[in-house]
Amino acid sequence: MSLLVVGTVAFDAIETPFGKTDKIIGGAATYIGLAASYFTSKINLVSIVGSDFPAEAIAAMNKRSIDTAGLQIVEGEKSFFWAGKYHNDMNTRDTLVTELNVLENFDPILPDSYKASEYIMLGNLTPSVQMRVLDQLTEKPKLVVMDTMNFWMDVALNDLKEVIAKVDVLTINDEEARQLTGEYSLIKAAKIIRGMGPKYLVIKKGEHGALLFHEDQVFYSPALLLEEVFDPTGAGDSFAGGFIGFLAATDDLSFENMKRAVIYGSAMASFCVEKFGKENLEGLNRGEVNARVKQFSNLVQFTTDV
Amino acid sequence: MSLLVVGTVAFDAIETPFGKTDKIIGGAATYIGLAASYFTSKINLVSIVGSDFPAEAIAAMNKRSIDTAGLQIVEGEKSFFWAGKYHNDMNTRDTLVTELNVLENFDPILPDSYKASEYIMLGNLTPSVQMRVLDQLTEKPKLVVMDTMNFWMDVALNDLKEVIAKVDVLTINDEEARQLTGEYSLIKAAKIIRGMGPKYLVIKKGEHGALLFHEDQVFYSPALLLEEVFDPTGAGDSFAGGFIGFLAATDDLSFENMKRAVIYGSAMASFCVEKFGKENLEGLNRGEVNARVKQFSNLVQFTTDV
Repeated sequence: MSLLVVGTVAFDAIETPFGKTDKIIGGAATYIGLAASYFTSKINLVSIVGSDFPAEAIAAMNKRSIDTAGLQIVEGEKSFFWAGKYHNDMNTRDTLVTELNVLENFDPILPDSYKASEYIMLGNLTPSVQMRVLDQLTEKPKLVVMDTMNFWMDVALNDLKEVIAKVDVLTINDEEARQLTGEYSLIKAAKIIRGMGPKYLVIKKGEHGALLFHEDQVFYSPALLLEEVFDPTGAGDSFAGGFIGFLAATDDLSFENMKRAVIYGSAMASFCVEKFGKENLEGLNRGEVNARVKQFSNLVQFTTDV
Repeated sequence: MSLLVVGTVAFDAIETPFGKTDKIIGGAATYIGLAASYFTSKINLVSIVGSDFPAEAIAAMNKRSIDTAGLQIVEGEKSFFWAGKYHNDMNTRDTLVTELNVLENFDPILPDSYKASEYIMLGNLTPSVQMRVLDQLTEKPKLVVMDTMNFWMDVALNDLKEVIAKVDVLTINDEEARQLTGEYSLIKAAKIIRGMGPKYLVIKKGEHGALLFHEDQVFYSPALLLEEVFDPTGAGDSFAGGFIGFLAATDDLSFENMKRAVIYGSAMASFCVEKFGKENLEGLNRGEVNARVKQFSNLVQFTTDV
């Protein structure tokens, strides 16, 4: 099935306790697209960059079956740039620089060939931009997944709620679920958020795994125990890419298959954090991905006679 | 198989965001014994109280098949008393009062009938007191499990390491594992701790579940998602009681069965935190325990073809 991915394609500069990078290629849609590319080969990218963005980076996306007809390149302007520094626990970070650049006036234009995409991944972006994408679809998609962050809860809550009401799956982290609902208990927060529209909710808990909520069902995926978490940047986006990429490839929206999708998403996130930036998402093969999924299975499976 | 439980029997006064208690009966051995009593009926208690400790509380233990021949009652002295207040996140607490009382000069004397116990649970206590218990055993036990806390790492590290070297399973929380080893990565910390002696290590992560390490294997049990965590007091001890109680009952030390024991321990901890103090550990039946284990299974089980 065809997968439409909307989100940032950008430059990042990252500092962690293990080292720091110059400007490297990042952005939510970059991670989502790469992670999804291990499952499906019909990926339609909608994003925007400046003329400072290297042509070889676009070629690298194309090589991984990411169609960039929907990637706007604005002559004479600069790409979105974010710089951040992670603290020692790797769970918190300070933003050092945010230069919106081309993102400031981003109007996402869907090429005609994208308008009937069956699976839609709205990466973290201004909610009104996410809505503009949904408005251009000519066919009802099979599944719309949306990622967002606390920033939009602070500055654009009403717009955010309008988009949330239109999606099938929302992915946010635990603190964002608490902020959005005012409930500390995640089980209570999940009920409230599903009441806002999404039939499915994924709550990401970083090194503590991820939860999938649907009706009265809950599924929990652990995070793998890694010797080192090298750079958490892009982990949530890699999760989203693996999740929707697996669903687009299998085209099965049963709860059993959604559970598998959460595990595949978690596997892609675990690869992402092992190296700086997107480095570890480019040279994998499907056998390595499957071997990692097997590790998740081994980590939690047990038998009882009850 | 017979199970020897050593630890405190005490009074607690607890304040949480949901309310506060007067002095209620607590103590590590109380929680361990109650949790274990759902699996095995040969529980030998070694502890100490003052003459202020109510006879009916001892009768209640006996009713749950806990033998109290090893419970010293010191005439004219007072029982150990702890008072604490939990913060809103329920993960952190302030100690308001610690009155050692009888615990100050506790010399654990094992009745002869206890000295060949096959399963040994050393609840959190002064390491030298834990060692005194091991020194009195006349037969090599099948399994020794030890719980401890950061306090002993601060004030009695050498004694603590001597006991750790003699046990089969150590249970500590994630922050304590980091403190004991100076390693942030739990997978690295686990290797170092297993190098200190224990063949098995359980790292408890509170609301984020528990990890079991053995050789190159890792097993992860989630925590159940509860609508409310009412009072976390005793959760770790209830875990330990369920864990060793299940092992003593099944007498099977394969890794597969140790995994089950971690799940049963997690189930008992989940019951514990739903009400104040030990209230929820007294009126359960084995069917309810099994139903909860089934919830853990449902939470994490998935199928893949990889």
